[in-house]
Amino acid sequence: MNRIELDRSDDLSGLISTYRPGFSLDARFYSSDAVYQRDLDVVFCRNWIYAGHISQLPKPGCFFLMEPGEESIIVVRDGARSVRAFANVCRHRGCRICTAEAGEVKAFVCPYHAWAYELNGRLRSKRAMPKDFDRSKYGLKPVRCEIFHGLVFINLDDGAPGLIDAIDEMNSSFEPYQLENTRVACRETYTVDANWKLAVENFMECYHCAPAHAEYSRCHTLKSPKDNEALRPAMLEEAGRLGYSTTAIDRSLPTDTGLVQYYYARNALYEPFVTGSKDGSAVAPLLGRVKEYGGGVADIQIGPVSFGILYPDHAVLYRFVPRGVQCTDMDIIWLVNQDAEQGKDYDLDELTWMWRVTSEADKKIILYNQKGINSRYYEPGPLSEMEAFTSGFIRWYLAQIE
Amino acid sequence: MNRIELDRSDDLSGLISTYRPGFSLDARFYSSDAVYQRDLDVVFCRNWIYAGHISQLPKPGCFFLMEPGEESIIVVRDGARSVRAFANVCRHRGCRICTAEAGEVKAFVCPYHAWAYELNGRLRSKRAMPKDFDRSKYGLKPVRCEIFHGLVFINLDDGAPGLIDAIDEMNSSFEPYQLENTRVACRETYTVDANWKLAVENFMECYHCAPAHAEYSRCHTLKSPKDNEALRPAMLEEAGRLGYSTTAIDRSLPTDTGLVQYYYARNALYEPFVTGSKDGSAVAPLLGRVKEYGGGVADIQIGPVSFGILYPDHAVLYRFVPRGVQCTDMDIIWLVNQDAEQGKDYDLDELTWMWRVTSEADKKIILYNQKGINSRYYEPGPLSEMEAFTSGFIRWYLAQIE
Amino acid sequence: MNRIELDRSDDLSGLISTYRPGFSLDARFYSSDAVYQRDLDVVFCRNWIYAGHISQLPKPGCFFLMEPGEESIIVVRDGARSVRAFANVCRHRGCRICTAEAGEVKAFVCPYHAWAYELNGRLRSKRAMPKDFDRSKYGLKPVRCEIFHGLVFINLDDGAPGLIDAIDEMNSSFEPYQLENTRVACRETYTVDANWKLAVENFMECYHCAPAHAEYSRCHTLKSPKDNEALRPAMLEEAGRLGYSTTAIDRSLPTDTGLVQYYYARNALYEPFVTGSKDGSAVAPLLGRVKEYGGGVADIQIGPVSFGILYPDHAVLYRFVPRGVQCTDMDIIWLVNQDAEQGKDYDLDELTWMWRVTSEADKKIILYNQKGINSRYYEPGPLSEMEAFTSGFIRWYLAQIE
Repeated sequence: MNRIELDRSDDLSGLISTYRPGFSLDARFYSSDAVYQRDLDVVFCRNWIYAGHISQLPKPGCFFLMEPGEESIIVVRDGARSVRAFANVCRHRGCRICTAEAGEVKAFVCPYHAWAYELNGRLRSKRAMPKDFDRSKYGLKPVRCEIFHGLVFINLDDGAPGLIDAIDEMNSSFEPYQLENTRVACRETYTVDANWKLAVENFMECYHCAPAHAEYSRCHTLKSPKDNEALRPAMLEEAGRLGYSTTAIDRSLPTDTGLVQYYYARNALYEPFVTGSKDGSAVAPLLGRVKEYGGGVADIQIGPVSFGILYPDHAVLYRFVPRGVQCTDMDIIWLVNQDAEQGKDYDLDELTWMWRVTSEADKKIILYNQKGINSRYYEPGPLSEMEAFTSGFIRWYLAQIE
Repeated sequence: MNRIELDRSDDLSGLISTYRPGFSLDARFYSSDAVYQRDLDVVFCRNWIYAGHISQLPKPGCFFLMEPGEESIIVVRDGARSVRAFANVCRHRGCRICTAEAGEVKAFVCPYHAWAYELNGRLRSKRAMPKDFDRSKYGLKPVRCEIFHGLVFINLDDGAPGLIDAIDEMNSSFEPYQLENTRVACRETYTVDANWKLAVENFMECYHCAPAHAEYSRCHTLKSPKDNEALRPAMLEEAGRLGYSTTAIDRSLPTDTGLVQYYYARNALYEPFVTGSKDGSAVAPLLGRVKEYGGGVADIQIGPVSFGILYPDHAVLYRFVPRGVQCTDMDIIWLVNQDAEQGKDYDLDELTWMWRVTSEADKKIILYNQKGINSRYYEPGPLSEMEAFTSGFIRWYLAQIE
Repeated sequence: MNRIELDRSDDLSGLISTYRPGFSLDARFYSSDAVYQRDLDVVFCRNWIYAGHISQLPKPGCFFLMEPGEESIIVVRDGARSVRAFANVCRHRGCRICTAEAGEVKAFVCPYHAWAYELNGRLRSKRAMPKDFDRSKYGLKPVRCEIFHGLVFINLDDGAPGLIDAIDEMNSSFEPYQLENTRVACRETYTVDANWKLAVENFMECYHCAPAHAEYSRCHTLKSPKDNEALRPAMLEEAGRLGYSTTAIDRSLPTDTGLVQYYYARNALYEPFVTGSKDGSAVAPLLGRVKEYGGGVADIQIGPVSFGILYPDHAVLYRFVPRGVQCTDMDIIWLVNQDAEQGKDYDLDELTWMWRVTSEADKKIILYNQKGINSRYYEPGPLSEMEAFTSGFIRWYLAQIE
């Protein structure tokens, strides 16, 4: 029976102990409410989670929301041009303050009783409150927020170590792309009726690329370890010449779960592909300090649920947002040079084609995966050699929640 | 964690003990299945609940349904012209008998196996039943029912004290309006995905009127305690002259939870408003014994979830019907003189405009309130001086369920 | 309170002990998650369940799915033309393999990572698997499967006794119809938001036929025990003359729960009906060895949730598929002679009319039944003399789950 609930923490230990290295997880990890609550508490509330891109906050008062589980976090640029994050919960009776996914405001005014907060979270009004009401105690609850090369990360855990220092060695990997000088050309959400871990596990392996992603596989050598190895030396040599870091970084394993997970590797593209496009040709102006096409692409990860593919002319960033035990949003943004003009410098359909078709296909197979796992005939199966990162994610995950 | 369930009654006591007077409630009161079941058992099954208006039952055999939670109660006028209520559950295998929200029948015939009941609930057929079947034991289960000035109330508790006697002092408040001589001009249901208590708490305070209800606030001085106070003496003098009761009644507090909750107060309207309309002008013929406009409006409550606004020319009655832990119907009826003709004596859009726009706005903010409360960042916040009735409702509610 | 959950197996015993013979069941049997899980475990995983008809598998590689609860079972004709059944769960990471309800394949290829299985379930590929991977251990999990007169049955219990031997005495009942030489002319699914038992209980009695099924009742004497008795002798004499078995078989009671449930009886039709049609006239060529119209119709059951009506010129087969505690699919197929051509030999609307109108009506009343049972006013009520089979089903069911 897959659907048995976990009532006590020792049940969780027992469940974790069922894990057999090299195999997929027990079904209850993908169907139990108790495990899901634990996932939210630990994975999403104690880690640095990528929330969005700095270009989504061009001016003071601009904000966007990040909403894992039943949370709603406001990320905003304040009057001093700092980026801050707050819980989207009025301190009066708990109403959501920002009700749109993104927008621009002069102050945060609760739509219910008009409690108004400065962009820095300070409560400024106290209409009809008792005389002893101390408004300094009722500011918006702050959420930690750090920015790395234009990517905004939040952390709901006040005691967690900082992000930027922890991932210092990633700087050289990002530097050529200057993602801080890009802007969001497109944003799409793919909602899949499956547990968030199935979506992450899917993203972390390319064993399924050849069968499920013909479009991706014509372009990316990740689909074939043999091809990937064969083309690697020439790709790395070219990458070095073009100024990319050629040192792979892999901090995705649970050897030290106190550390932020992060990852950087370059992978070759098949000829004649110079970027992730339909026909292989360029789709946008070169990013940042990138001088010419070549040197493969960068596959990156920062935090447990944030992934990216950095092409020479655009970047694709992925965040997985849990919405329920078996419901997950896959949010994707496409970044281009901040000066690039749609229609002139790039065509939106061409730019986004590769990851739209790929995400549509993933949405289907992840759902089929969840449905099969819900069967009493499911049992954990053996992973292939091409699923090493999925296996690593599972080990990291189990270390987190135990 | 807000979503932890309550497994035992001592958990409920513990939860109740978290209450801090002057603050809003803990999130679990709005999200726990166990609390919701308790609410249904106590609040909705032991109190007098307003179900509808006598004009909805013009003839013998006319009925309407009231459906709190998973219940379905038939309110019907029987052959002796008495109003009665029954559980809408066939005594054979439990099928719903009345499947439309309202209608007119000669007898209650179950659509499944045609068990037929008189309008007084008596089973009259016994097709194919064993010889020892005693049909006198299988009448429809009666539900208590009382009528006050045309308003029909039901009570699922056979042991509760009667309604009419308990609210005797409310007679003079209702008398001028003669609601028993009105009829339903319009009925609307607004479904809001929030716990029923959030909808009631919303209705019981006007702190949110100015921010959220511009239309209401142009008309009703309740939005401003200062204005309300300033205009009160002149309004009361006029009200007295026009024959309205000028004695406010407030039995909404939990000092004696054995008593029915009820409330009556008059509140001034801003000039030039003579009723709750878009431009302030009259929208229907004067009600009952009302001779002229003026004297403000009556705000009334009978029972925990029934509220009304009595204008000189129409009345608006509100009932809150729980449909799930986080789903509530707000059902509204607009009453006009029974002789008033639509199109001639009143325009339906004009008549209903004020409370349609107000309810649409409430539907949104109550939902935002629920969403914010579902966040782990929510904590009970301090109520304002304008939320005294909401605070009183909370205290009454806690006394009920403990 | 109907909604109290059952946390322990002794709660189930307690619930079973509430049963009063001759009455309907306690509400919790239709609303408890725990009871529903028990139903799936016992009723649907230990009995022979009718899944479909052999004509749905005309060639090797043709398959269809049967999906009770969260299961998905593939029924397929393999390369040796045998019919087999497998769990629709990839042995790798659990993905559904067949994603369409029916189809034709050369092999089973998982859409996720392309693990490929022979039609006999054997895993044939091992792309990128470790050297010690033994693919012989990772074939599709088999499900037992037997065929009776063209009807395909599955059983998820490896230890259950075989079907064909157990129902040997049913052969003569089926023989004249030669259902193995028919094909599916139409397939419809009616989804009803009610517990599966309410749907089965509905099917097993004709007390509701007269009130709820005017169309059926004009044709079938089952609606009237008196008429049924009166017309029986002549019908049986004619049936015998035409070569039908005239011996009724009733193995539907729980006297021995180890036995498969099955049932056969002939019932007269009213004049001038010769089949289940709108006007009583023939709707398709005579089935199998049937030589002429007459001799009534056969009502049959094999297994707990599979029923059929065998007319001289077509057959209607019913399966009930649980989809949730209060959600059930009623799947119907209409069988005609395998050589009959649509448009020439039969009109699809005429052929299916009777059981479409009947099923639409049942869908409504079963839903009303569930809604009424969800009320706290529901209590088990007395069954009529015309509900003997429903009563028998209840007793069989309680013996199963205890």
